[in-house]
Amino acid sequence: MTERRARRHDPDRRERILDACLQVIGEVGVAGASTRRIAAAADVPLGSITYHFSDVDELLRESFERFTHRVSDRFEVHLARAADIDEAREAVVHLIAVDLPADPDELVLTHELYTLAARDPGYRRLTHEWMARSRRALERHFDPGTARLVDALIEGLTIHRALDTEPHDLDEVVRAVDLITRAPAQPERD
Amino acid sequence: MTERRARRHDPDRRERILDACLQVIGEVGVAGASTRRIAAAADVPLGSITYHFSDVDELLRESFERFTHRVSDRFEVHLARAADIDEAREAVVHLIAVDLPADPDELVLTHELYTLAARDPGYRRLTHEWMARSRRALERHFDPGTARLVDALIEGLTIHRALDTEPHDLDEVVRAVDLITRAPAQPERD
Repeated sequence: MTERRARRHDPDRRERILDACLQVIGEVGVAGASTRRIAAAADVPLGSITYHFSDVDELLRESFERFTHRVSDRFEVHLARAADIDEAREAVVHLIAVDLPADPDELVLTHELYTLAARDPGYRRLTHEWMARSRRALERHFDPGTARLVDALIEGLTIHRALDTEPHDLDEVVRAVDLITRAPAQPERD
Repeated sequence: MTERRARRHDPDRRERILDACLQVIGEVGVAGASTRRIAAAADVPLGSITYHFSDVDELLRESFERFTHRVSDRFEVHLARAADIDEAREAVVHLIAVDLPADPDELVLTHELYTLAARDPGYRRLTHEWMARSRRALERHFDPGTARLVDALIEGLTIHRALDTEPHDLDEVVRAVDLITRAPAQPERD
């Protein structure tokens, strides 16, 4: 956070710029997200962006941080609601099949962030924190090793379901979650 | 494929342009991959790109097709070498932990392609064909349902290992592959 503060008469301006930045990235990608375009989407003067953010990189990082927090908040709510491990399994299936793919803009923003993180290790702090929060939410119900595998499974199945041209069966998700979560915590290998 | 053919004296020019396009995307992203930049990287005159490709979209699609074929070819070789199901499990672990993360440019190109496919359903033909080839290679050793889950697991674990700031344990990969592949083909649910 910078020490600069939003003006008294428009206290939400900083957050509005971050949301506008995410909206513009969803429309035209990180590469097309100029401060001019973001200012227009936020309905603020261009100078307001340089007033609130020291550079485009700070604006991008804070926008993606806001995005990952939004997805993580929802992820946590679903897992916190589960009363036992069976409901936790159902919550994971729901996240993969219903909640996470519901908003196409989130799919685009996720891959825009992964592309940044693939190219620039600086962005891996964000992807690391996102994974860490998901795992902590899963650890309400599963041991840490299983939580990591469930998190990777959610990632892989969500991507493959979104980027395929054929519909995927819900049974496949139920079976995958069962296979990963019904085994003993650390089985001996043969 | 267009019906245009490369000139006799430079028969590999078309392929060289595709490779140069992938190199430029790796460096500056799809958004920065101008034909001028690609022509310079391929060491061909700018007109050669318009001679070989009807538009930037055709150039992008064929470049990413070339990329996915390259990764799929390697994927198939590893699975074809496995003499039995235990060697197939080892091949999957090797792909996740060693082969797929070896080249950072491939990570970038994968996420650039996923970003395109997330935004434009036209690119999902490419991601669909890529998944279909991976699954066929896995079906040499695993039933089709298991092959789909292993493919999703490879996706999720490869991404999480690449985009985390902490190293991941190899045992976690071995355990995940075991959990997914050692269960009966279609177990009854309780």
